[in-house]
Amino acid sequence: MTISTDVADAAELDARDPLAHFRARFVITEPDLVYMDGNSLGRLPKEAVSYAEEIISQQWGTRLIRSWNEGWFTAPARVGAKIAQLIGAQSDEVIVADSTSVNLFKLVVAALRFQRGRSRILTDDLNFPSDLYILQGATDLLNAQHQLEILPSPDGIHGPTAELLARLDDQVALVVLSHTVFKSGYMYDMPAITAAAHAAGALILWDLSHSVGSVPVDLNAAQADLAVGCTYKYLNGGPGAPAFLYIRRDWQERLRNPISGWMGQKDLFNFELTYQPTTGLSSFLTGTAPILSLSLIESGVDLILEAGLDNLRAKSQQQSTYLIDLWQAVLEPLGFSMNSPHAIQQRGSHISLGHAEGLRIDLALLEGKVIPDFRAPNNIRLGIAPLYTSFRDIHTTVMRLRQIVAEKLYEKYSSEAPIVT
Amino acid sequence: MTISTDVADAAELDARDPLAHFRARFVITEPDLVYMDGNSLGRLPKEAVSYAEEIISQQWGTRLIRSWNEGWFTAPARVGAKIAQLIGAQSDEVIVADSTSVNLFKLVVAALRFQRGRSRILTDDLNFPSDLYILQGATDLLNAQHQLEILPSPDGIHGPTAELLARLDDQVALVVLSHTVFKSGYMYDMPAITAAAHAAGALILWDLSHSVGSVPVDLNAAQADLAVGCTYKYLNGGPGAPAFLYIRRDWQERLRNPISGWMGQKDLFNFELTYQPTTGLSSFLTGTAPILSLSLIESGVDLILEAGLDNLRAKSQQQSTYLIDLWQAVLEPLGFSMNSPHAIQQRGSHISLGHAEGLRIDLALLEGKVIPDFRAPNNIRLGIAPLYTSFRDIHTTVMRLRQIVAEKLYEKYSSEAPIVT
Repeated sequence: MTISTDVADAAELDARDPLAHFRARFVITEPDLVYMDGNSLGRLPKEAVSYAEEIISQQWGTRLIRSWNEGWFTAPARVGAKIAQLIGAQSDEVIVADSTSVNLFKLVVAALRFQRGRSRILTDDLNFPSDLYILQGATDLLNAQHQLEILPSPDGIHGPTAELLARLDDQVALVVLSHTVFKSGYMYDMPAITAAAHAAGALILWDLSHSVGSVPVDLNAAQADLAVGCTYKYLNGGPGAPAFLYIRRDWQERLRNPISGWMGQKDLFNFELTYQPTTGLSSFLTGTAPILSLSLIESGVDLILEAGLDNLRAKSQQQSTYLIDLWQAVLEPLGFSMNSPHAIQQRGSHISLGHAEGLRIDLALLEGKVIPDFRAPNNIRLGIAPLYTSFRDIHTTVMRLRQIVAEKLYEKYSSEAPIVT
Repeated sequence: MTISTDVADAAELDARDPLAHFRARFVITEPDLVYMDGNSLGRLPKEAVSYAEEIISQQWGTRLIRSWNEGWFTAPARVGAKIAQLIGAQSDEVIVADSTSVNLFKLVVAALRFQRGRSRILTDDLNFPSDLYILQGATDLLNAQHQLEILPSPDGIHGPTAELLARLDDQVALVVLSHTVFKSGYMYDMPAITAAAHAAGALILWDLSHSVGSVPVDLNAAQADLAVGCTYKYLNGGPGAPAFLYIRRDWQERLRNPISGWMGQKDLFNFELTYQPTTGLSSFLTGTAPILSLSLIESGVDLILEAGLDNLRAKSQQQSTYLIDLWQAVLEPLGFSMNSPHAIQQRGSHISLGHAEGLRIDLALLEGKVIPDFRAPNNIRLGIAPLYTSFRDIHTTVMRLRQIVAEKLYEKYSSEAPIVT
């Protein structure tokens, strides 16, 4: 059908959506709330509610310490193996542990120590700042005069791919990029950039935080070396749920975890006084995992696996296209810019709209029961989580944005920065 | 009253116990199970069950991303401030973050970088192995030819205090000790050792994992520099709940977090490309905290605060003395050794009993509905958690141990190592 701004079209798109029934698998207590922030914190799966009760009352409350032998010890690898299915990895190439930033630290330090003699690190200014901070901390610590090169995006939207490729040479130790970048939703060409990095002898590390569960990723096909990612966005793992890390199998015995802790020790219950890493990826575990937060990831990942990533990607692309069509018809004339790539294969699953009054518009939206998030200086970031985002949600969001600007409803808000993640 | 081996005496001790009513504040689904492993994983507080429901259904399910502004961002400091009350620290000297091992890594690296020019690090072989592994990893990473000296305990039970004091000189950068050690339960004299370390110009870092919530700790009175600790043992925070770290106020601006992440950034929502640590202890945060696991710590700590640490210590000492009296009367003749200090002021809240058939006895105990844990080579470790451990529990444990050895019930078990934490 031809897209129009008519709400009936949104309703019809929802009626035809083969994934629409997944919305009922989530706890939705405010039916009139339009939640466009699943790219920051995914919704609560109903399955997670009952699973939490089992973990707390049964596993902790009743089985107590015995639960370590009944599934807790293996949880980092078990949940990791499920995530592996979403990112084109082998089941023994992904584990869940710590936060994305701590995992990034481990992998960056390990990679740089392996790449002794190479001094350059390439990244970009679209990368999530925490990744840059970790790189700064890690290189400062290694004290090896690494040069961290933060390549500027040509337009604040697209990745600096051409410059990145031009800068690769035999002094580059490591390339670190967000596969889908947090502001614009630009998505890098993973196979091409990975191949170019390898041709120069560099290792590559992909941050999949804004990709996993929303776009197909094939780390093995790209022969990617290392990756990290977050579980509380499109995976719906719960607030601050621990992150994952990926190390390609042939790297696992060559890289050393700098935060060498008990959970990565060989025969840990021998309590040897000297660290001896266990084999495989488990040597990149450090301390005891937060079991409640870790376990609930499984409920979220199961839903993604059930829906199928290709189906989710198809719906996400259809929805972002719908959003862009509505933007063009309704919002562009009101001064909104599209701060995400127009090319569909370069888009992740969130769209950023810019406006000179962005922050005040964001605040007005929030009060009007539409939840986006805001990213300085002027991005209203709209996350499409195809498991539960409806076309009607998108339609409502655009029409509210139109109303807020057309009627200058934003004028009653101040431009003081909010704190939302 | 005079302690006898009569079960009626245990019942009378329970009847007189002013803390006995706290047992009803925990979920206890198997009334006949004797749980002597609260030093490894504390029981589930009833309060945590309803709090978990609120966090999951209300905070995550309904409030969604808005919860970050409604308590999640401040949770690491809020829960830290409560723990501070249990360890003699100011409210702004403790935060909850990551695992004990990751926190230890941060503090050790920060301290060693500050102490440049000093090459020696003192610890002991009673320390939890993960702490030694972290020290090994950190010094290897700093590549500054640090000398890690693992002083041997004179008897496997008591800390090598005399040798430690004798070894302190102006080349010692850092002393790292478990305040209460994990096998024997030996407790160091924190004020004396801290003062001696300071006299030599060394920094001191205490691991409080087996102390917090069971013995009074006064970090400020001792002027201790740094500390870390675990929340899932005597604090009953839940499996793998995140750990805490303490930095004395005057050190906070002088030490740098090597795992510099977004949560430690000044004005984090400005998304600057260069790391600039925020003021105070929050600069030692790294990534996003696992909110479910973190939040439940509060229920556990509240119970400890309500009961009062001095009351808990008094009961714990009375109970460990009772256990030792029973051991002497009943178990010593059967070949059990006491692998914990006899001196009451040197004991934490768990008692280790040794036996040549330790592991097989442990397995027989487990099948007989008594849960201890086992620490190689032959320690049956009995944790006294005075919030819910009864004198009857202790009596039952000792009588089962007697029966298992007297009737050789352990003979049907093999000596293959179990995996329990």
